[in-house]
Amino acid sequence: MRMSMMLMPTLREIPAEAEVISHQLMVRAGIIRKVASGMYSYLPLGRRVIEKVEKIIREEMNAKGGQEVLMPIVQPSEIWKETGRWDVYGDEMFKLKDRHGREFCLGPTHEELITDLVRQEVKSYRQLPLLLYQIQNKYRDEIRPRFGVMRSREFIMKDLYSFDCDEAGLDASYEKMYDAYNRIFQRCGLVYRAVEADSGAIGGSGSHEFMVTADNGEAEIAYCPACQYAANTEKAEGNPSDEGQPAAKNAAMEKVHTPGMRTIEDVSNYLKVNAKDIIKMVVYEAVYSEKAEIVAVLIRGDQEINEIKLKNYLDCLHLVMASDDVIVAAAKTSGGFVGPVGLTGVRLIADKTAAAMGEGITGANEADYHFRHVVPGRDFIIGETADLRTVKAGDACPHCGKALEITRGIEVGHIFKLGTKYSESLKAVFLDENGKEKKMIMGCYGIGVTRTIAAAIEQNHDENGIIWPVPIAPYPVIIVPISSKDEVQMKKAQELYDRLNSMGIETILDDRNERPGVKFKDADLIGIPLRITVGKKAADDDLYELKVRSNGEDHLLGLEDLLLTIKKVLEPIG
Amino acid sequence: MRMSMMLMPTLREIPAEAEVISHQLMVRAGIIRKVASGMYSYLPLGRRVIEKVEKIIREEMNAKGGQEVLMPIVQPSEIWKETGRWDVYGDEMFKLKDRHGREFCLGPTHEELITDLVRQEVKSYRQLPLLLYQIQNKYRDEIRPRFGVMRSREFIMKDLYSFDCDEAGLDASYEKMYDAYNRIFQRCGLVYRAVEADSGAIGGSGSHEFMVTADNGEAEIAYCPACQYAANTEKAEGNPSDEGQPAAKNAAMEKVHTPGMRTIEDVSNYLKVNAKDIIKMVVYEAVYSEKAEIVAVLIRGDQEINEIKLKNYLDCLHLVMASDDVIVAAAKTSGGFVGPVGLTGVRLIADKTAAAMGEGITGANEADYHFRHVVPGRDFIIGETADLRTVKAGDACPHCGKALEITRGIEVGHIFKLGTKYSESLKAVFLDENGKEKKMIMGCYGIGVTRTIAAAIEQNHDENGIIWPVPIAPYPVIIVPISSKDEVQMKKAQELYDRLNSMGIETILDDRNERPGVKFKDADLIGIPLRITVGKKAADDDLYELKVRSNGEDHLLGLEDLLLTIKKVLEPIG
Repeated sequence: MRMSMMLMPTLREIPAEAEVISHQLMVRAGIIRKVASGMYSYLPLGRRVIEKVEKIIREEMNAKGGQEVLMPIVQPSEIWKETGRWDVYGDEMFKLKDRHGREFCLGPTHEELITDLVRQEVKSYRQLPLLLYQIQNKYRDEIRPRFGVMRSREFIMKDLYSFDCDEAGLDASYEKMYDAYNRIFQRCGLVYRAVEADSGAIGGSGSHEFMVTADNGEAEIAYCPACQYAANTEKAEGNPSDEGQPAAKNAAMEKVHTPGMRTIEDVSNYLKVNAKDIIKMVVYEAVYSEKAEIVAVLIRGDQEINEIKLKNYLDCLHLVMASDDVIVAAAKTSGGFVGPVGLTGVRLIADKTAAAMGEGITGANEADYHFRHVVPGRDFIIGETADLRTVKAGDACPHCGKALEITRGIEVGHIFKLGTKYSESLKAVFLDENGKEKKMIMGCYGIGVTRTIAAAIEQNHDENGIIWPVPIAPYPVIIVPISSKDEVQMKKAQELYDRLNSMGIETILDDRNERPGVKFKDADLIGIPLRITVGKKAADDDLYELKVRSNGEDHLLGLEDLLLTIKKVLEPIG
Repeated sequence: MRMSMMLMPTLREIPAEAEVISHQLMVRAGIIRKVASGMYSYLPLGRRVIEKVEKIIREEMNAKGGQEVLMPIVQPSEIWKETGRWDVYGDEMFKLKDRHGREFCLGPTHEELITDLVRQEVKSYRQLPLLLYQIQNKYRDEIRPRFGVMRSREFIMKDLYSFDCDEAGLDASYEKMYDAYNRIFQRCGLVYRAVEADSGAIGGSGSHEFMVTADNGEAEIAYCPACQYAANTEKAEGNPSDEGQPAAKNAAMEKVHTPGMRTIEDVSNYLKVNAKDIIKMVVYEAVYSEKAEIVAVLIRGDQEINEIKLKNYLDCLHLVMASDDVIVAAAKTSGGFVGPVGLTGVRLIADKTAAAMGEGITGANEADYHFRHVVPGRDFIIGETADLRTVKAGDACPHCGKALEITRGIEVGHIFKLGTKYSESLKAVFLDENGKEKKMIMGCYGIGVTRTIAAAIEQNHDENGIIWPVPIAPYPVIIVPISSKDEVQMKKAQELYDRLNSMGIETILDDRNERPGVKFKDADLIGIPLRITVGKKAADDDLYELKVRSNGEDHLLGLEDLLLTIKKVLEPIG
């Protein structure tokens, strides 16, 4: 493509509204333009990157026996009401009515529609397994769309759904997708981690996220350098056999005056103890579809409650911190002095680490007083225990006990074992070899296509712009003639351009009448992996400067060496 | 692909709700399934056909310098209000609100968004021309969706928009697209016609439709076998120098009693004249954005008023037949006896053919009476004349005068010269060579991707099923082993399958444990161009039966001849 013909409006200034680097660079490189909050147009460079990513995804899905389908974006409400998710999604779902008043939504996902299709068309075990996928716009009416296409309201997803006869089949399908996802992100040229994940609102029994590592990633990943354990901190297991647990001293419980000492920090300073010597109690209200309950959670003072774990453990719809009124009604005092001793009429759940403490300091359920030497199980009944804490750097790995490390990442893929969650509510059944009716066992597997592009930029950029990994670059090569008024240079550039095109190498020819500095700046900003400069040396001696965007390496090469080098750099990964 | 693994639910029965053959066959061949009225899921075979058509379109758009973009489906209302089309589209547009109450629509088309993008990014003549396109779902909330994907509410379109500096540039862009469209439909293997068309609600000065000819096509095409003139009958020009016009007899106008004779047929029978001797008057109410008016139209009795031409001529928003009350108020009598003589206070427009009549019979504006020997221009003032009639078979060609013929077709593409319609309302301007601000000159060019698929089936089928043109067939080849229990046959079939795949020829292997009759019926129904039967002769003598779906030809061939023949048949068109 000749750059003079392209719609590629680059900007030198950082757009004011772009908070993260990928958003800034996507606007500055002329990849996206905002149409409305969380809705973007992809300009030609952006559209090309989408196509590259989609092609890799399609090839890997097909290689695993995936069959591509295309379902409607606009989905009738009836099927969502059948699974109960019409209400669960709430305001996050875009809803609309047609001219006859029938209700529809813009699909945030397609479990309902695909299960409806399969329950109608598949009746026998002989028609299973099935791996059906599509690549399509999805919609989520985020309260606060931000970070450009990273958290937008309209975005492109690949979603695959697996249907199997039994759990072993699901395991096999899941394994196929796990492999395919690894290949996809490898082939995209990205550094990523597959981590254990929470299955959230989608539901199901097992789940992995694929995270592109990036300093500004929204997600936190706990990983063990020793044993390869890796998990989203939303999900990462706490190891209760943590070192440094306060030991039991066989002392009797004792009330101490702690005037105005409401926080862990206050109490530990005032009593000259460590935060980990304190048992903190936090009171929540959990809302279920037909009831609500008050839940008090115990956690060691130096740790944090992981509310996602708690919500999953309770299996409730919503979880909120209890109001002061509720706390006073339950514990006879307000927050800061509440504790498990003598507490009645409240569901009490101890995090496993808190439950394993030899002794600790707790609120006394009386203003300005705490108890010390409180022994869990002796001084209060531990109703339930569960892993409810957020894992931190240095915590013991739940598998091998070594210290965990924390890194950040951007979730670009997520795979789920759904089991029978949808086949049950939608009655998707088949007859097995013995003519017995069984529920289909399902999985679902998503990749955020547009998000992957933003993540690729978060991971691959420098102060001059984007550094596209070769496999997803909009064009792998750009030719920059130093002077577009020099006829010999332009002729050489044109010949090279024709030659590369005839080799099937997609190339930009920067034929604009601009200063070399402007051309170089744009080439860096839009992140083309290989830049060939056609200047005086090319005109005089047929020598071309090849610059590699990723490492800044410069090579001065004759034509044939140049072509060979380019071919080698562009060889596909995987 | 192995057929045993495919989701390809074929049906023997014709689905009750499918009125047209393409809809019936798309359901029966397992290509689509209905999700809601006018909304369909595309199953794997359908998805593959979409991909083939899209690939051809992309290649031809790119070959003309088209740059692919991707705009949001969900569009903010503000830009539609700027052009005034938020109200014009009315109930045909799906509208919705986000969680903050902002109004959006599901794009029926993208003139507004693309013009908004270009007006922001393009400031100079040096950035023009631009040809920007996308392939994407479009939405139209049809009152009565029908004919499957032919008139659905969610459908896939390719839409390209051209931006030029001047009319000559627009002509060049239009010509490029006209060429590209011809190549696209040729490459799809379809019989089609490019015809002059009405530009309808999109607006603009020139327009062609691309029609796939089909007996059940919704559109009527008038064409001249002598001079190549071809036009949609919505648009085809009437030639007023039609033979058989009633000649002037120089007789005075005379009132005749025609008791209860309200229709053309009544009057012509009663007065023993031909329908073409009568001047019919029809009264309309035309609604404009800020007013309404009563319009009386004169047409020769054997002809029909073309309301699309009338609406364009009036440039009104809506056109409805006047109610009895309105007619009585205007012409002192009810319909059937109204006429132009003595009519006042009403805008009178004569079709050119009616205006050119030597004399005629008209209503007398008095119940049960007509006038005869009414001479236009003598007995009433012809206020305005315009071409307002619908052309019929046998009418004189407007260019050469030979008799026109009529055929039917399905509109699959439509190209428009928009001129400044949108650049004016949206202020899309640029600076020309002299630094003078000018409006961009636009064109728009659409192809209905999913509609093209339905049209291909309407044109290419027989009583046994679909006959896909080779270039858009989901798979060009299917291998049918006669007995899936015969090990030698299955081995030969598998070897052939591997060989064809390694040649890059997409092949289905019907490895199902079904009777040969079932396999043959399915192969015919899903319309695969080439069927290879692997039976006893293959097992014994390496001889394969190659059957061509389109003409039923049978060839018994050795392996190498078979492969050569297949390669030849599959060679791309164009």
